[in-house]
Amino acid sequence: MLQFLTCGESHGKYLSAILEGIPSGLEMDLDFINHELSKRQKGYGRGGRQKIENDQIEITGGVYKGKTTGAPIGLMIENNDVKINELPQLFRPRPGHADLAGALKYNEGIREILERASARETAIRVAVGAVTKLFLHQFKIETVGHVVQIGKAKLEEEVTFDQILKKREGSEVNCISREAEKHMVAEIQKAMKNKDTVGGKYEIRARGISIGLGSHVHYKRKLDGRIAQALMSMQSVKAVEFGLGSLEAETHGSEAHDEIFYDSKHGYYHKTNRAGGVTGGMTNGAEILVRATMKPISTLRRELNSVNMKTKKEEKADFERSDVCAVPAGSVIGEAIVAFEIADAFLEKFAGDSMPETKRNYEGYLHQLAKS
Amino acid sequence: MLQFLTCGESHGKYLSAILEGIPSGLEMDLDFINHELSKRQKGYGRGGRQKIENDQIEITGGVYKGKTTGAPIGLMIENNDVKINELPQLFRPRPGHADLAGALKYNEGIREILERASARETAIRVAVGAVTKLFLHQFKIETVGHVVQIGKAKLEEEVTFDQILKKREGSEVNCISREAEKHMVAEIQKAMKNKDTVGGKYEIRARGISIGLGSHVHYKRKLDGRIAQALMSMQSVKAVEFGLGSLEAETHGSEAHDEIFYDSKHGYYHKTNRAGGVTGGMTNGAEILVRATMKPISTLRRELNSVNMKTKKEEKADFERSDVCAVPAGSVIGEAIVAFEIADAFLEKFAGDSMPETKRNYEGYLHQLAKS
Amino acid sequence: MLQFLTCGESHGKYLSAILEGIPSGLEMDLDFINHELSKRQKGYGRGGRQKIENDQIEITGGVYKGKTTGAPIGLMIENNDVKINELPQLFRPRPGHADLAGALKYNEGIREILERASARETAIRVAVGAVTKLFLHQFKIETVGHVVQIGKAKLEEEVTFDQILKKREGSEVNCISREAEKHMVAEIQKAMKNKDTVGGKYEIRARGISIGLGSHVHYKRKLDGRIAQALMSMQSVKAVEFGLGSLEAETHGSEAHDEIFYDSKHGYYHKTNRAGGVTGGMTNGAEILVRATMKPISTLRRELNSVNMKTKKEEKADFERSDVCAVPAGSVIGEAIVAFEIADAFLEKFAGDSMPETKRNYEGYLHQLAKS
Amino acid sequence: MLQFLTCGESHGKYLSAILEGIPSGLEMDLDFINHELSKRQKGYGRGGRQKIENDQIEITGGVYKGKTTGAPIGLMIENNDVKINELPQLFRPRPGHADLAGALKYNEGIREILERASARETAIRVAVGAVTKLFLHQFKIETVGHVVQIGKAKLEEEVTFDQILKKREGSEVNCISREAEKHMVAEIQKAMKNKDTVGGKYEIRARGISIGLGSHVHYKRKLDGRIAQALMSMQSVKAVEFGLGSLEAETHGSEAHDEIFYDSKHGYYHKTNRAGGVTGGMTNGAEILVRATMKPISTLRRELNSVNMKTKKEEKADFERSDVCAVPAGSVIGEAIVAFEIADAFLEKFAGDSMPETKRNYEGYLHQLAKS
Repeated sequence: MLQFLTCGESHGKYLSAILEGIPSGLEMDLDFINHELSKRQKGYGRGGRQKIENDQIEITGGVYKGKTTGAPIGLMIENNDVKINELPQLFRPRPGHADLAGALKYNEGIREILERASARETAIRVAVGAVTKLFLHQFKIETVGHVVQIGKAKLEEEVTFDQILKKREGSEVNCISREAEKHMVAEIQKAMKNKDTVGGKYEIRARGISIGLGSHVHYKRKLDGRIAQALMSMQSVKAVEFGLGSLEAETHGSEAHDEIFYDSKHGYYHKTNRAGGVTGGMTNGAEILVRATMKPISTLRRELNSVNMKTKKEEKADFERSDVCAVPAGSVIGEAIVAFEIADAFLEKFAGDSMPETKRNYEGYLHQLAKS
Repeated sequence: MLQFLTCGESHGKYLSAILEGIPSGLEMDLDFINHELSKRQKGYGRGGRQKIENDQIEITGGVYKGKTTGAPIGLMIENNDVKINELPQLFRPRPGHADLAGALKYNEGIREILERASARETAIRVAVGAVTKLFLHQFKIETVGHVVQIGKAKLEEEVTFDQILKKREGSEVNCISREAEKHMVAEIQKAMKNKDTVGGKYEIRARGISIGLGSHVHYKRKLDGRIAQALMSMQSVKAVEFGLGSLEAETHGSEAHDEIFYDSKHGYYHKTNRAGGVTGGMTNGAEILVRATMKPISTLRRELNSVNMKTKKEEKADFERSDVCAVPAGSVIGEAIVAFEIADAFLEKFAGDSMPETKRNYEGYLHQLAKS
Repeated sequence: MLQFLTCGESHGKYLSAILEGIPSGLEMDLDFINHELSKRQKGYGRGGRQKIENDQIEITGGVYKGKTTGAPIGLMIENNDVKINELPQLFRPRPGHADLAGALKYNEGIREILERASARETAIRVAVGAVTKLFLHQFKIETVGHVVQIGKAKLEEEVTFDQILKKREGSEVNCISREAEKHMVAEIQKAMKNKDTVGGKYEIRARGISIGLGSHVHYKRKLDGRIAQALMSMQSVKAVEFGLGSLEAETHGSEAHDEIFYDSKHGYYHKTNRAGGVTGGMTNGAEILVRATMKPISTLRRELNSVNMKTKKEEKADFERSDVCAVPAGSVIGEAIVAFEIADAFLEKFAGDSMPETKRNYEGYLHQLAKS
Repeated sequence: MLQFLTCGESHGKYLSAILEGIPSGLEMDLDFINHELSKRQKGYGRGGRQKIENDQIEITGGVYKGKTTGAPIGLMIENNDVKINELPQLFRPRPGHADLAGALKYNEGIREILERASARETAIRVAVGAVTKLFLHQFKIETVGHVVQIGKAKLEEEVTFDQILKKREGSEVNCISREAEKHMVAEIQKAMKNKDTVGGKYEIRARGISIGLGSHVHYKRKLDGRIAQALMSMQSVKAVEFGLGSLEAETHGSEAHDEIFYDSKHGYYHKTNRAGGVTGGMTNGAEILVRATMKPISTLRRELNSVNMKTKKEEKADFERSDVCAVPAGSVIGEAIVAFEIADAFLEKFAGDSMPETKRNYEGYLHQLAKS
């Protein structure tokens, strides 16, 4: 079992996490983790904060001479923009934010809430996810995320995993089509011009996963449920769908399921992937394919109606520096989140205290599958 | 904290559950639980099983003289259609089912898998949910579910909570519009005629929930994530969305968030509900509004391609008696699932070993909110 | 991971449990489970209840044609002495029982509390433990429990695992020495004559466990802590000690630790077992050896001072039918409890969804150890 | 619910923890935490490390302007003696340490194991405990720890909570009797002279706890079990006992239980405390009184037999700088551990997101008790 806790505030000194459950002997590639962190900071439509920060990971425990030891792994990012104690308290909660519910629930000011609820926390979740990606790479499991919609601009074409890997490179919005990208950027520019923000949708895929992660036996062990929980808990996400997703509502059974084939090279396999790689709460051998919809950022220059919590009078909501569109970053965070959940399910099935042990258990299962 | 485990197989002797964490002193209304169970059994498009079963709850622990004692509550439903040992083993996994992944993962036959993966297990989840509904009723929290789409037939009108309560009564598909119902039934008939099945979408709402259930501080405590996990873990569900859901992708911030208002009678409130009642992982005082998409049932008379697991030859998938459309039942199950998650978050915040204690804690918070 | 919940009351209709996490393919030997249940019912000094009950297990889920399927396993024992609704409410809490604290905490009567707090619940914990023993037997891991003290009568001799297995048979107090047994029975008779009760101590051992279950990396994963939690949570247990236990306080380091040896046949091993088989929270290859002290039963004919909760006047405590000494039964229950914890740690390390997979993983590790 | 993870190695750069679940509005008294840390570093018989370190807490999250915000609290101690990468690998596992089992289990060197298994990790557990002590102080719940035995030197006198608070001050071994202290120091000196180490026993008490923390309804919720788990998971602890503890084995019921009394000022109370404050898994209103036995430190100058893991030849165990007796420090750590478990059970019962809410809930219960 893999577990982690994070702590830290948006303008505090550090963001940190402790990740427990990674086997010993995994090489900790700091460049890779830093690369993931930098990917999260990019994207057309980001605000000023990303120019200030240059996220770098520090390992504070669980790694000895470059390799994990099996002990909890400490991860820490130092913030550059440390000013939590100088920033003003706020009194006009921003619609769409945790501000109001948080301040009432915790009986405190909005500042305390927004500092923690801020999407800045996702930096450390990306770091946690990057460690799990390093783990998954040892088993040739890869994940990839890309943007499929910003505002009304949608990616319409079907793409393969390899195409995503190749074509998203260099995109300002982590999109695989230059044509779609152009429209997406236009959508962001339009929102920017209107002092507004804009939502979008990203897709995460994972490949190389053998049949049988997750389980149908108990509702808490179903992999799709676990991934849905993790993605929906990401700031701004309002919808999560696997495979055909919402389209399944209007589909007939004869077109909704993935027929089963077999050949001696691949074993059992599917030619379609309508299920998004998970059937009965278990991986079915196809790529995991999940999409998440992000609402537009809730902090916008075009002010929304709010209430001054001191006077109870209607006033415009407070404004904090923010992005116009964070969907490209979202696709990086979502990939990290999905990687974590897959690694967790992988370790639930294959366990192992050391990488050689986990590999041995995994190979034993692959061999079993090959004979089934 | 509320937790439960279920056990039992589709054609075994019992389905049962143990539910831990309900305070003492809650009246256990068996008629209410049985009524919920019967609602799950209804709906146009159900198969023969529902004619055989007449689900009745038996309480096997945790209740004394009609009231809970604080001890774990035992729930049991006796199956009428007990024939697990007589039913044949199967060898041709049904596309869309847990059959193939389960049989390979657990190294056993398809029969063992389908008996547990069967949606028959949802009967006991409805019973668990019914107990949590009884709990929530003590705090004037109500839940309701209704069908908003079957195949291409959609409910287009906007409805209030009260309208749902009133208008879904008597509907064969748990839909609030007789016009929409007519089209939904036609969709089911069409599928039936084609030896096919058809998917759909249901909506669950909950009202009467004060601001502040769930939390932004830790990703595992966000209420939307928890509800998403629970709904996605329901058999057939492929998409979960809160409020505007997938539509948020094409929306601008100025139209995506719920502005904040205040008056002395209601305290802080929203006039819109685009968020579906959850902001920053916390309830925001509006109704919880979540929609789940169900794929068409995977067992269909129009046979899909499969592989005989003994011979590895291509053959048509096995057929087990099944429904044509289970979306109306899904809306009952989904309501039970959401009720459980709300009750869990409620007890996380208000705790209490006895109903008087939980109420006292809750009222203290309502008083705090009123003064905030 | 292995988890279970139990429900049921002392004089209710059933005691039941749901056990989640056992791999598929384990043969479910009902005779074995029933034999374990009958062992718990025996012992000199037991009260009238054991003559009424004849505990028999019923499997309510998770088993198909005699083998586990990987689904949650339902276990149920029907009580013969069902009279919870006829028994009188009580008002004079019994010192040493959950009565007072429970009634105040849960805001209810003593009857509700004692029915759940009763040691009758241990019957179903023995059933859960018996399933885990069946699991452990597949890996040649054995557990054994015996009584080492009742009142002032102590077992002084050192014994081996095999001697315990052989010599406890036929003992009225589950003791391996006929001489010590005589004194133990005399202690019980003395207590009986004085309308009193008497405490004692039992020892649980487990053998055949490879080095490395549990872990030093996180306090919640230490095996000794987990076993201590489980044993201390057994009714009446007030002390838990591993190996030399309390004696370690007066010992010097040079005599407190188990020196390390190696030969090609056994690998690394110890000639002594002062640690009780757990070092740094991990099994060290020696037998697990843990002792638990039980206080005397709290219900005694010689009445203790109490308070009438209706009048607040001092009165003698209520009396419910009870045993004079339950230490022999305790040694059976303790064995079941320790078996569960070992099986849980075993599955944490070796995982596996099916018995063949768990075995393959385990054998891979044994091979790794042999080469280390 | 309260949860925490720790990370860090003995000679790494930091020890850190993330503590989740403390309500908002708790004043974070850094001096108090640092004072607790310094207490852990003291005690006759400590080694050279304590002269090098001067543990100071840094808060890395969850605190704003001196008060908790409800977000996870980050705690960090910087090590002075950072040399993990310069220290040699070891090959001769020390008997009594995690060395052998850890190196085999994790497939790595002894250095990786001992750096994490080291009792240096307890520094951060003391910090976590100190935060929970600050929390408990708000409810007038106090904890205290003192040493009752080192080697053959025992504290024989009965003492009250107030006497412990007062008399342990200034003691080199955290003992309340100067006479006993003299003998304890002599025991340590003897061990030192013999190049040996020596064990001991400490006692932790907590007062001010109302009836009803923990619960009898489910074995995992019993407070004595949870405290036993936590103490047994502390490095070196081999036995845990509540109240009369092991002595209960030879006691009769008439002398083993705490009779119940009532007066209008105290409500229900006990005049004795044989149970150590926990009955039926719940606090009974008396002081919690628990004792833990520590084995002698496993690293001793008088070398024990071991095996060179490279050559498999018998050699003397490696030696790392260490203490001769850590029981006084143990009593500080044990107090922190017990404080955490009580705070966890307290929050389980009273919940609350902010200190005012937790207090309101608590006071409501006290009022309920007063009327019962």
